[in-house]
Amino acid sequence: MTYCVALTLSEGLVMLSDTRTNAGVDHISTFGKMHQFEVPGERSICLMTAGNLAITQSVATLLREGLDGAGGTDTLYTVPTMFKAAQLVGAAVRQVYHTDGAALREQGVGFDVSFLLGGQIATRNLRLFEIYAAGNFIEATTDTPFLQIGEHKYGKPILDRAVTFDTPLYGGVKLALISMDSTLRSNLTVGLPIDLMVLRRGAIHAELRRRIGEDDPYFRMIRESWSEALREAYRVIPLPDWRTDPV
Amino acid sequence: MTYCVALTLSEGLVMLSDTRTNAGVDHISTFGKMHQFEVPGERSICLMTAGNLAITQSVATLLREGLDGAGGTDTLYTVPTMFKAAQLVGAAVRQVYHTDGAALREQGVGFDVSFLLGGQIATRNLRLFEIYAAGNFIEATTDTPFLQIGEHKYGKPILDRAVTFDTPLYGGVKLALISMDSTLRSNLTVGLPIDLMVLRRGAIHAELRRRIGEDDPYFRMIRESWSEALREAYRVIPLPDWRTDPV
Repeated sequence: MTYCVALTLSEGLVMLSDTRTNAGVDHISTFGKMHQFEVPGERSICLMTAGNLAITQSVATLLREGLDGAGGTDTLYTVPTMFKAAQLVGAAVRQVYHTDGAALREQGVGFDVSFLLGGQIATRNLRLFEIYAAGNFIEATTDTPFLQIGEHKYGKPILDRAVTFDTPLYGGVKLALISMDSTLRSNLTVGLPIDLMVLRRGAIHAELRRRIGEDDPYFRMIRESWSEALREAYRVIPLPDWRTDPV
Repeated sequence: MTYCVALTLSEGLVMLSDTRTNAGVDHISTFGKMHQFEVPGERSICLMTAGNLAITQSVATLLREGLDGAGGTDTLYTVPTMFKAAQLVGAAVRQVYHTDGAALREQGVGFDVSFLLGGQIATRNLRLFEIYAAGNFIEATTDTPFLQIGEHKYGKPILDRAVTFDTPLYGGVKLALISMDSTLRSNLTVGLPIDLMVLRRGAIHAELRRRIGEDDPYFRMIRESWSEALREAYRVIPLPDWRTDPV
C-alpha cells in the first residue's frame, strides 16, 4: 500500500509520501512515489502516486515524455496552468487504461490508481488536485485544505482535528508527519523512508525536499513525542463515575 | 458501516459498539449491534456484529432461539464453554450462508459479516473471539488484547500505542471511548449512540451496561479533552530546523 498526504495552506503547499510498495507481504520494495516537475521561477509541480506501480510509473513517464494533445506534445513542463496539468494527468491515466486496462482485467487485476498533484505556475495560483482512476479530479479548497490517497484512514483523525487553511506552513509539515507516523505505526504496508516537499506560495521553487529515514532525528523526536503525548492525554482524562451506577 | 471494539484485560472485558446502519448515505438508521446473553452467576456473554444487517440479525436470532446440534438444540444460553460459544456463532453464520448465500450472490450482495464474542461462563476463563464470515474464528491474547470489527482503522492508532493486557479495566473503557471518538469524528457512517458493556473477570455478571448518546457528559468531556490534547500535543512539538537547509 501507500500513504500520501498533501496540505494546501495560506502560506503554501506541503506534500508527503511513503516509499513502500508490496506485491504480497513477502515482496516489499522501496519506490519513490513523489515526482517533481520544476523549472525554478517558472513552475514547480509535484505528483504523488498510489496504486498499481506499473500503472503509476507509466503515467509518470507519459507526463515527463509527453502525450499527444491538441497543440502538439504536452508534458507537465509545457502545460500553461495547474488545471491543465490535472487534465493532463487524467489524460495520461486514460491512455494507460486504453493500453493496459483490458489485459489487466483479464488477469483479474483492478485498474486501481490515484494521484495528488500540487504546485504553482508563475503568475497563476497554487493549486492542489486529486485525480482518480477514471481520469476525473477534484480540487482541495480552503474548507478542506488537505487530500490523502492510499491508506488514509489511520492518519485522518489528527488532520480532521487540527488542519485549517491558516495552519502555518511548517505546522502543516508537523501535522503531515504526525499523520504519516500514525499510518506507519498501524500498517506495515506503509514504510520508511518518506519523501517531503514544501513549496511556499509565490516562490515557484520548492524550498524543501527531504527524504526522511529511520535515523532522522526530527522525525524520530516527533514519533516519540507523539506516542508519549497520546499516552499522557489518555492518562489525564478522569475515569468515569459510572462504575458506581446501578447495573 | 459499523465500529465495534473489545478489550480483554487482566481485570476483565470491555466491549463497545456504535448503532448506525446505512443502506446508502440517505438511508441511515439506529440498530443495536450489541447482544447480551446473561444468566447472572452462571454466564455473561456479549456478541457484537458488523456487516449486512439482515445476516447479523438472523445470526443473533439463531443464537437465541437455537441451532440443531449433536446434543439437541444449542443456544448461547446452553453451550458449556466460550470456545463452544464461538463455534456456535460460526455454525449460525454458516447456516445463514446456507440459506441466503446463493440468493445474495445473485443480487451481487457480498456475504459480508463479522462478530466479536466475549464473556465468561462460571468456573471457566473469560475469553474474547472474532468470528469471520466463513464461520472460523481467532481469539485475543495477552499479546494482542484488543479486537476490532467494521470501520477499524481510524481508531486503531491509539489502541496500538496504549492498550496492554495490564491496562486497568476503566482505563480500557477510556481507550475504547477515545478509539470510538476518532472513528465517529472521521467517518459519518459510524454514529451515536454507542453501547458499552464492562464485565469484571470472575464476576459472571456485567457490572456496567450503558447506552451513551450525544448528551452524555462524560463522553462529551472525553471528546473535547481528546481533541484539545491532540491539538496541544501538536503545538508543543518544536518546528524542524530544516527550513534553513540548503535546497
